Amino acid sequence: MSRDLMAQIEEIVYPRSLALIGASNREGALGRLFLDCFLYTGFEPFYLVNPRQENILGRKAYRSIKDIPGEVDLAVVVTSADTLPQVVSECTQKGVKGVAIFTAGFGETDPGLKKVEQQLVDIAHNGGTRLIGPNCIGIYCPESKLSYPLMPGTEPGTVGAVSQSGSVVDMLTWQATEMGVKFSKTISCGNECDLTAVDFFEYLGQDAKTEMIIAYLEGVKEGARFYRLARRIAAIKPVIVWKGGLTDTGARAASSHTGALSGSRRTWETLFRQTGIIQVHSYEDAFDALLAFYHLPLPSGRRVVVVSGGGGSAVGTTDAVVELGLEPAQLLPETSSKIAQVIPPVGTSSGNPVDLSIAVLRQPQIFGPVLRALVEDENVDMVLLVGAPSPEFTDLVVPIVNGTRKPVAVSVSLAFEGSHQEYKRLSQAGVAVFTDPRRAALALSRIADYADFRTRALRDG
Amino acid sequence: MSRDLMAQIEEIVYPRSLALIGASNREGALGRLFLDCFLYTGFEPFYLVNPRQENILGRKAYRSIKDIPGEVDLAVVVTSADTLPQVVSECTQKGVKGVAIFTAGFGETDPGLKKVEQQLVDIAHNGGTRLIGPNCIGIYCPESKLSYPLMPGTEPGTVGAVSQSGSVVDMLTWQATEMGVKFSKTISCGNECDLTAVDFFEYLGQDAKTEMIIAYLEGVKEGARFYRLARRIAAIKPVIVWKGGLTDTGARAASSHTGALSGSRRTWETLFRQTGIIQVHSYEDAFDALLAFYHLPLPSGRRVVVVSGGGGSAVGTTDAVVELGLEPAQLLPETSSKIAQVIPPVGTSSGNPVDLSIAVLRQPQIFGPVLRALVEDENVDMVLLVGAPSPEFTDLVVPIVNGTRKPVAVSVSLAFEGSHQEYKRLSQAGVAVFTDPRRAALALSRIADYADFRTRALRDG
Repeated sequence: MSRDLMAQIEEIVYPRSLALIGASNREGALGRLFLDCFLYTGFEPFYLVNPRQENILGRKAYRSIKDIPGEVDLAVVVTSADTLPQVVSECTQKGVKGVAIFTAGFGETDPGLKKVEQQLVDIAHNGGTRLIGPNCIGIYCPESKLSYPLMPGTEPGTVGAVSQSGSVVDMLTWQATEMGVKFSKTISCGNECDLTAVDFFEYLGQDAKTEMIIAYLEGVKEGARFYRLARRIAAIKPVIVWKGGLTDTGARAASSHTGALSGSRRTWETLFRQTGIIQVHSYEDAFDALLAFYHLPLPSGRRVVVVSGGGGSAVGTTDAVVELGLEPAQLLPETSSKIAQVIPPVGTSSGNPVDLSIAVLRQPQIFGPVLRALVEDENVDMVLLVGAPSPEFTDLVVPIVNGTRKPVAVSVSLAFEGSHQEYKRLSQAGVAVFTDPRRAALALSRIADYADFRTRALRDG
Repeated sequence: MSRDLMAQIEEIVYPRSLALIGASNREGALGRLFLDCFLYTGFEPFYLVNPRQENILGRKAYRSIKDIPGEVDLAVVVTSADTLPQVVSECTQKGVKGVAIFTAGFGETDPGLKKVEQQLVDIAHNGGTRLIGPNCIGIYCPESKLSYPLMPGTEPGTVGAVSQSGSVVDMLTWQATEMGVKFSKTISCGNECDLTAVDFFEYLGQDAKTEMIIAYLEGVKEGARFYRLARRIAAIKPVIVWKGGLTDTGARAASSHTGALSGSRRTWETLFRQTGIIQVHSYEDAFDALLAFYHLPLPSGRRVVVVSGGGGSAVGTTDAVVELGLEPAQLLPETSSKIAQVIPPVGTSSGNPVDLSIAVLRQPQIFGPVLRALVEDENVDMVLLVGAPSPEFTDLVVPIVNGTRKPVAVSVSLAFEGSHQEYKRLSQAGVAVFTDPRRAALALSRIADYADFRTRALRDG
C-alpha cells in the first residue's frame, strides 16, 4: 500500500499536465494569482477552466475539465465550496490523478462539514483520484514547475517541507529562497481530507532529492505511523518540526484552523526526544534551524570558540554557548599567538572568547587571519563568529567558511544601513548567519545534538 | 555622602566645558573619532589637547590641559596607558571635575595593573576629581551635548543606560535611536576604578529625566548597596538588566573584560526576582525589552487577543501567549460580529485568535476595523497583532495604537523588501514592534509581570 501511495504522490508532485479550475483574469482574484504563478514557472501543458469565460489572458478557457482535449494529471481548484462535489466528480471522470483544493470553508469551519469532505473523498477514490486539502495552498516543486502564489523561486534544491498551514510554508519558502536556500518540494496539506501530512512526510523521507525536512504540524491523524516514520527518517536526514497547538488554547485554535487533533504536549515532546526530531518554537526559530541545517556541516565534537568585536558580546555569547550545553574550546597556544600578532595589544583578548574589541569595526581585515587560525586549531570543533556586517566582512568570511569542514555560525546585527543586504549575501554564499549571537549558539547546539543523535542511532542500529 | 556623589555625577554629566586629551586630525584615529563627535553635537567651550600639534582642523590644540585659559569640567582621555598618571595629575591640578578614560590596558589585561588604576584614583581624589573608566567609551547625554563615536543622536529623551561594556551600550543606543527611542543619559563605566555602575545606577534612579533604565552588567562591587537601590528604583521605573558572565566560563571572560567579580547565577536570579528587575538574556532580547517598556503602557490585566493573517501563525502565537503566562481573552459576542462583518467568510476566524487569513495581504485595510473592535472590547487587556508590513499597514495601525490606553504589540516579519523600513517607521511612530510573534508575546508578558510587581510593591509599601 505504502509503495503505491508513494507512486501516487510522485505522480501528483511531478504531473505531466495541469489544469487550473477557477482561472480568472481579474487582478487580485485567487484564480489570477495561481494563473500568474504557473505562467511564471512556464508549466506546460497548462489548461484553464472557467465556465463563464472563453479566453483568459489570450489562453483558451474550458467550460469543464472534461472538455480539455489531452490528459490532466493534476487539477488545482480555487472555486467556491459548493462547486466542489461536481468539480471533483468531473476530475475523477477525466482520470485526474490529484486534485489540490485551495478552497476553504469545510471541516475547519463547521465540524458538520467534515461529512462534505468525506463525500469528496468517496467520489475521488471511486475513480482512483487523490485529494490534497481542502484549505491548502498546494505544492511547490521547482523541478516540476509547480508553485503557489508567493512564487518562491525556480531552482530545485534539497529541502523538503510539509505544512498544515499554508501561510507558514508560503512565508518560509519565500524568505528562505531569498536567503539562497533551495527546495526539492514543499506541500501544504490543509484539512487532509484524503492525503495527510504523514503521507507527505513519508514521501519526503524516501525522496532521494530531499536531504532535510522542515514541517509545521498541528496534529497528525496516525500517531503510531508518524512515530515509526520519524524514527526511521530523522536518523537519515534532519527533520525540523514546529508543532502548533501545544497549549490547550492553541490546540482549540488549531482545531478551528485545520480541524486537526493536537495530542498532548507531553506526547509530542517525548516523540521529538525519542526520534531525534529537532523541535522549534516559532517562525523565526524554524527559520534559524533551517539555515543551520542547510548550511552547516555536522561537527565532530562540542568544543566552540567565540570570536567577537566587543567584550560584552564576547561574555554574553560565552554564557549562551555554555547554557546551551556546548563546551568552550581551549585554544592551542600557537593559535593564541597567531591571533595576538594581528589584533591590537590592548582592549582585546587572544584566548577564548577572542575579543577583537570594537577596533574591528574600523579594521574588518582582522577577521580574516583570526578566523583562519581558529578553524585550523585541532582543539576547536565549531566557531561562533560575532561579526560586523559590511561588504568587506562578507568577502573575507565567505571563502574561509566554505574552505573548512568545521561549522562556523556567524551572527550579524541587522541594525545598520545595508546590514540586511549582507545578511542575505552571507547566506546566499553558503554561510549560516543569524541576527543575534544567542541564536547562533542555539544553531551550533542543535547541530551538535543532532550529530550525537546520529552517532547513537548508527551505533544502536 | 550619596547626595554629594549625585551632585558630583551631575556636574560630570552636564559639564560646562570639555577637553579632549589626545585629539587628532588623523582619519580613523580615536582622537579624531571623539573630536568629530563633539564637533557634531556642537559642544562649547570645547578644548583640544595634543602636545605634538598646535592646530587640529582649524582649532587650537594645547600642549597640556593646564594651558587651557578657561575652566574645564570634563576631560575625555584617549592617550596611551603610560601617559595616564601625568594626564590625571594635570587634570586634578586644573580642577577638572571628571575624567572619562577611554584608554584600555589596565586591570582587565593584567590584575597587577589594578595597582596603577588605584594610583590614578589616589591622584584624582587628592584634588577632588572623579574618574570614569578606564576602558570605557564615556557618556552620551543629548541634553548636555556629550556623545561617543557612533553618535546615536541629538534629541534628549527618557531612557537611561549604564553598561560595563562600551560596545553593547554603543550599539544599543545607536540602534534604538534609529527606532525613535530617545535617551536621557547613557554611561559606559568600564573598569570602574573610581565611579562604578552602582553609582551611575543610583544616579539614573534619582534622575527626574530618566523614566526607565537599561543596564549591561558583568558584576557589581557593592552587592548589598545595589540590592537596596534596585528594590527602591525598580518599584518606580522599569529596570532592564542583561547580566553577562552568568556561567563560570562567561564569568572568567568577564574578568578579563572589565576585571569584574561576577557573583553566582543563583544570587543574581534571586536578586532579579526580589527586586522586580526585568532580566534579559541577549542583545536582541535587551533590545526587545527596551522597545516594550519604551512604547507600551502598562496593562490593567493579563487577557490577550491574538490577531493574525494566517492560521498557522494564529495557532503558534496563541501557544506562545499561554506558555508565557498570559490569558487568552474571551471576546464579547459583539466584537466577533463586528469582525465577522469585515473579514472574508471562509478560511478566517472571528474568535480569539482572530485569523484574517492570508487574504489580508491583499486587503490590509481589514486590519483597521478589526484592531479598532479589539481595543474597544472590555474583555481585552492587550492585543498581539501579527501584521504584514507595508506602508498602508503602518498608516492604518499607528493612529489606532496611539489612540488607545491598551498595549498593542505588533509583529512584522523582516523577510520582505521594504519591511525593515516599515519596522523602523512603526517604532518611530510609537508602536512596539517585534520581528516574531513569540517575541511580541514575551514583550506583553514582561509588561504584565511588571504591572503586577508594581501593584504588589505599592500595596506592600
